[in-house]
Amino acid sequence: MTTSSSPQAALSSIPADLACAQDYEQLAPRFMALPSFEYIAGGSGAGATAAANRAAFARWSVAPRILADVGKGHTRLTLAGSAMAHPILLAPVAFQTLAHAGGEIDSARAAAALDAVIVSSTLSSFTVEEIARAAEGRHWFQLYFQDSRDATLALLRRAEAAGCGAIVVTLDAVIQAPGNRALRAGFRMPAGCVAANLPADLSEPLTLEPGASRIFQGIMRSAPGWDDLAWLLAQTSLPVWIKGVLHPDDARRLKGMRVAGIVVSNHGGRGLEGAPASLDALPKVRDAVGADFPLLFDGGIRSGLDIFKALALGADAVMVGRLQMYALAVAGALGVAHMLKCLREELEMCMALAGCATLERIDGAALWRND
Amino acid sequence: MTTSSSPQAALSSIPADLACAQDYEQLAPRFMALPSFEYIAGGSGAGATAAANRAAFARWSVAPRILADVGKGHTRLTLAGSAMAHPILLAPVAFQTLAHAGGEIDSARAAAALDAVIVSSTLSSFTVEEIARAAEGRHWFQLYFQDSRDATLALLRRAEAAGCGAIVVTLDAVIQAPGNRALRAGFRMPAGCVAANLPADLSEPLTLEPGASRIFQGIMRSAPGWDDLAWLLAQTSLPVWIKGVLHPDDARRLKGMRVAGIVVSNHGGRGLEGAPASLDALPKVRDAVGADFPLLFDGGIRSGLDIFKALALGADAVMVGRLQMYALAVAGALGVAHMLKCLREELEMCMALAGCATLERIDGAALWRND
Amino acid sequence: MTTSSSPQAALSSIPADLACAQDYEQLAPRFMALPSFEYIAGGSGAGATAAANRAAFARWSVAPRILADVGKGHTRLTLAGSAMAHPILLAPVAFQTLAHAGGEIDSARAAAALDAVIVSSTLSSFTVEEIARAAEGRHWFQLYFQDSRDATLALLRRAEAAGCGAIVVTLDAVIQAPGNRALRAGFRMPAGCVAANLPADLSEPLTLEPGASRIFQGIMRSAPGWDDLAWLLAQTSLPVWIKGVLHPDDARRLKGMRVAGIVVSNHGGRGLEGAPASLDALPKVRDAVGADFPLLFDGGIRSGLDIFKALALGADAVMVGRLQMYALAVAGALGVAHMLKCLREELEMCMALAGCATLERIDGAALWRND
Amino acid sequence: MTTSSSPQAALSSIPADLACAQDYEQLAPRFMALPSFEYIAGGSGAGATAAANRAAFARWSVAPRILADVGKGHTRLTLAGSAMAHPILLAPVAFQTLAHAGGEIDSARAAAALDAVIVSSTLSSFTVEEIARAAEGRHWFQLYFQDSRDATLALLRRAEAAGCGAIVVTLDAVIQAPGNRALRAGFRMPAGCVAANLPADLSEPLTLEPGASRIFQGIMRSAPGWDDLAWLLAQTSLPVWIKGVLHPDDARRLKGMRVAGIVVSNHGGRGLEGAPASLDALPKVRDAVGADFPLLFDGGIRSGLDIFKALALGADAVMVGRLQMYALAVAGALGVAHMLKCLREELEMCMALAGCATLERIDGAALWRND
Repeated sequence: MTTSSSPQAALSSIPADLACAQDYEQLAPRFMALPSFEYIAGGSGAGATAAANRAAFARWSVAPRILADVGKGHTRLTLAGSAMAHPILLAPVAFQTLAHAGGEIDSARAAAALDAVIVSSTLSSFTVEEIARAAEGRHWFQLYFQDSRDATLALLRRAEAAGCGAIVVTLDAVIQAPGNRALRAGFRMPAGCVAANLPADLSEPLTLEPGASRIFQGIMRSAPGWDDLAWLLAQTSLPVWIKGVLHPDDARRLKGMRVAGIVVSNHGGRGLEGAPASLDALPKVRDAVGADFPLLFDGGIRSGLDIFKALALGADAVMVGRLQMYALAVAGALGVAHMLKCLREELEMCMALAGCATLERIDGAALWRND
Repeated sequence: MTTSSSPQAALSSIPADLACAQDYEQLAPRFMALPSFEYIAGGSGAGATAAANRAAFARWSVAPRILADVGKGHTRLTLAGSAMAHPILLAPVAFQTLAHAGGEIDSARAAAALDAVIVSSTLSSFTVEEIARAAEGRHWFQLYFQDSRDATLALLRRAEAAGCGAIVVTLDAVIQAPGNRALRAGFRMPAGCVAANLPADLSEPLTLEPGASRIFQGIMRSAPGWDDLAWLLAQTSLPVWIKGVLHPDDARRLKGMRVAGIVVSNHGGRGLEGAPASLDALPKVRDAVGADFPLLFDGGIRSGLDIFKALALGADAVMVGRLQMYALAVAGALGVAHMLKCLREELEMCMALAGCATLERIDGAALWRND
Repeated sequence: MTTSSSPQAALSSIPADLACAQDYEQLAPRFMALPSFEYIAGGSGAGATAAANRAAFARWSVAPRILADVGKGHTRLTLAGSAMAHPILLAPVAFQTLAHAGGEIDSARAAAALDAVIVSSTLSSFTVEEIARAAEGRHWFQLYFQDSRDATLALLRRAEAAGCGAIVVTLDAVIQAPGNRALRAGFRMPAGCVAANLPADLSEPLTLEPGASRIFQGIMRSAPGWDDLAWLLAQTSLPVWIKGVLHPDDARRLKGMRVAGIVVSNHGGRGLEGAPASLDALPKVRDAVGADFPLLFDGGIRSGLDIFKALALGADAVMVGRLQMYALAVAGALGVAHMLKCLREELEMCMALAGCATLERIDGAALWRND
Repeated sequence: MTTSSSPQAALSSIPADLACAQDYEQLAPRFMALPSFEYIAGGSGAGATAAANRAAFARWSVAPRILADVGKGHTRLTLAGSAMAHPILLAPVAFQTLAHAGGEIDSARAAAALDAVIVSSTLSSFTVEEIARAAEGRHWFQLYFQDSRDATLALLRRAEAAGCGAIVVTLDAVIQAPGNRALRAGFRMPAGCVAANLPADLSEPLTLEPGASRIFQGIMRSAPGWDDLAWLLAQTSLPVWIKGVLHPDDARRLKGMRVAGIVVSNHGGRGLEGAPASLDALPKVRDAVGADFPLLFDGGIRSGLDIFKALALGADAVMVGRLQMYALAVAGALGVAHMLKCLREELEMCMALAGCATLERIDGAALWRND
């Protein structure tokens, strides 16, 4: 990360010493322009929440079991009606051409090859239709509320038409503080890096009445409310997940609206600086919604061991964001596919040693809190 | 901070990469003589309490909420009868020409421009009358008990005559241990840096009887007592705040004396080395005085997130000391004004993401204790 | 450890400044090829569990006692029927010629000289028969289940015939993740470093059905189960210890099978990355099996003080793995013997200062938990 | 501490920037040969207990109080019948000529000048008679049990004849592990550094029966027992303190023997490595002996704030060991005197700010446990 030389071209084969999914984090800086890496790696502000996401995993150990019969073991699950080969999804990450020219197309190909779902972002570098073709049916669409209901609906209809299997509505990023790491590295979004799904931004500059707040009466003016979400849920028969929930009261209210499920997430530490670790919120949310309600998790996953811990603390499946971008930068579709394969095998090894032949066997009893 | 070259002249515009209030802390060393910076930045002794002030904030997270309606949000409050646009005051910091030639005059101008109250120190570099003119009515006076009641009363009368809106009596600095950082940097108060409100110090050197203690029978000889405070309260109809309270028993007793409010503070870690973090004392004091008693807080505020946490733990408003001096050093009145603007917007962003449209909505339920 | 020059030849006398058993850890890197040292020193993955093993000891203090009469003190014990001079065994460590050409033969000689039992590994560089001759009767055999019961039985019979006093069945390493330290140092098992007890591996490469898991249906296919253990216990009249147990439920079940005892161990942090510290599991296992059931412990022992703590937390005796390899590398049999002598004297000194004349006097009351 | 050049000559005046007692710790390495400094500064083994002694103080804060009347404040106390001007004693430190040619004579002069008691060691570089003359009556004698009761009694009689006011029997150092720092710096006791009170050591080398332990049947053979202590107590009418007690059960038993008091101490972390912090043991011992039993404390005192904390946790007075040696090295008698003066004023300042006019006012209510 200290070099300012040109980044290396992405690899076309996986090096033998690339031993685990997390290795992509170490390798990625060599394959990206420094400002882009800093933008992706950093969290909002000084990065306290992004760091907390990682630190939370270190508070738990997994107790091994002996002589367990896992010969019929597998990682299959059904998630809000979708059958999946394993509980690892590609999180919606915006502007993936920042990492690699292949962008979301490469990520989608990797997802298709590894039986993973890719959740493509409203702010993707390629259109939802282009990504859908590459994903071969394993494709969900992440939706941000737009300035008007019409614009929001138009995106929804495109996702439906493209064959997306579910909608993931992100609600935790109505304002984002810039990240210090990106600022200090001089990051600016490259000219060619645009949101392919959206028209060019022609909105007029914000004008505020005297005494009005740039935050409350400005940016938050068009923030969605509970009625907007109710309206949205009525527009589609697709399963709708809500992403960006940490507070159990919000989770409880969402459950009452019959959403498909909730993604416990703090936007990878890129939303409110000072938000709690996503993993610390997970058991509180699970408690709030009960045992059977579908919960996805993201925030700090770097290994199969991390996935095991998230599942033991209440998640049904997880999404990976930064690892996806790092692997994409290192080796494009091949990198993302290999990273997914590593994660899955790491999870299986952890399950085998913890005596859990199937995902349902993973529960809180397998975790010991470190002192 | 490692440079011994001449400090840079203060800026006349705000650099684009100055993204948050805390950035002034990083920038300030370039704009001040090193010994002065070390004097301001350091705490008493080895700085344990100053460090504890900061560390206490890291023990709390703010739980974000989704879909909250904050379009009518604002930061207004009434504090002991004074209407305020936001809960951020400029703390009394002595000898502000250490940071910038404009000193308290510049700070007062910034306060006036940003609808903030400045609390000017008994030990200000400019007179209370000069500061009052610059502050345009948003001015409180910080009062130290003087060696005689007459001298104390004279200061009080000047503050009243200058139009100060309240008196803040500081009680936690009757003795101050020197700070190691200042000592090691060779700090001495520059010749021109004098307390403009006070006559030159003509007091005779202390003579002690044999066996007497330089502390108990010397410095503490003229320390004020409860009767002195009762006397003072009887001399003025202005609201009188008491600054420097950490212990709930002291807070309870003060409440019984009908002071206007209390400032929970450890003098920025410049009083008793080994005092607890100001933020750790805050909920204990709030418990002692009950929900409606006015409480100000200072001690370690560097961001709007910190302000949110202090408010959630029981403060009605906060004061900023070191940030004020840092911003003053970097860009004079402009810097202080920009720093106040940053803090307010950071607070508003945090409120918006935590679903709190007004200050009253900020309470302990919004905070999660980190593990 | 930063040198890439050739390792030093093993010493033939103990340097005067080699003051304690743990000093072998500091010295060892000079006496081994770096990749071998990294292979031995590292744990699986990033080494979290190996580090946790050590950190757990730091959470406890030993309270000294005054004026205790320990003049008749000793460290003798009877462990599952075997009389021992002290509670320190040499753990089964595979491929000891990695550390020194003398390998397990040197370790066995040291064990014999210092009245310690050596537990030689199924994967030893010398045969069980060769090691038995060097160990002069102080020899147990560590057994891994082989692909067939016949192969397992053949090993068992050889150990019995060689005069081994007990069998230690290791169950926690059915899969081992590679360690990052070894990988990064480019470690590969040297050509001459083979498992002398086993035939050359002629097994066919694993073929999996489509969709099958390399972990569950591959590696774990031939993992032993509870019935295999029951079968094994029926084949021998030797005491059979079970090594690699952390979970109290497993311990409870094993006790019901009348095994000789249990070794609380996480394979030195070389099994499941993310497993809890072995010392943290020890009191849970002791609670599960009751006061009189034989328990051995390994995982992080570096000093007599560590041994004292393990005994106070429930172990009857301990095994040392890495220290054995370090001492072997530094000075062959002499090093291992000296290391054992240091450990024993360190334990005796700790017992003397804690007022414990015999091992039975060491209990939880001697330990204080650090804050 | 990284220099290997010759140490500086001791100072003959106190530098202006020597602001607090703890500064002597920073300065001392310049005034001593490195091996001697390492010997003094280090603890036994890796120094875990010496470090724990210091770390324990950081767990407590002192809550300041406002408006307290301390004008009649003082630090006087009566300790087991002896009136003292303040609660700071010079701990028994052996071989003080390691730090400065003036050794215990200089320390004693400083004690006399600052109204402090010096407890001179059995292993002092000067004789008890020489030290007594310099101490001008403020002199206690630290006694180690000798190999024979006659030898022990001879020392006791000399101390009585020299006018020592009390006897301090040290019981926690029957065996001492060498310290790594001293070993690594190549420390050896200089030839001229001998125990002036004792005859040259003519004892025969230890011979052990086969199978006997060098610890239990060797070094501990002549360790004193409870009956030896009972015998000693019967030999003198001087107050007898017992030093080196951490365990409440030992304290309780000692109280029943009517000793003058107890010194809670772990020998500055130079006894059992792995012993708990002395400060952590203090409240347990106080609980065991009740409110009125005399307790001294040592172990990590570096400031008046530390003294305040020790008193609040149950000590009646404290002893300083390493600070004594550091100040002695820097400036001989002058240094020790100045160090004592600093400590006392630091304690008084802390008392003043915590609202405690006298030592009896210092109690647990003044301390807050840090989070």
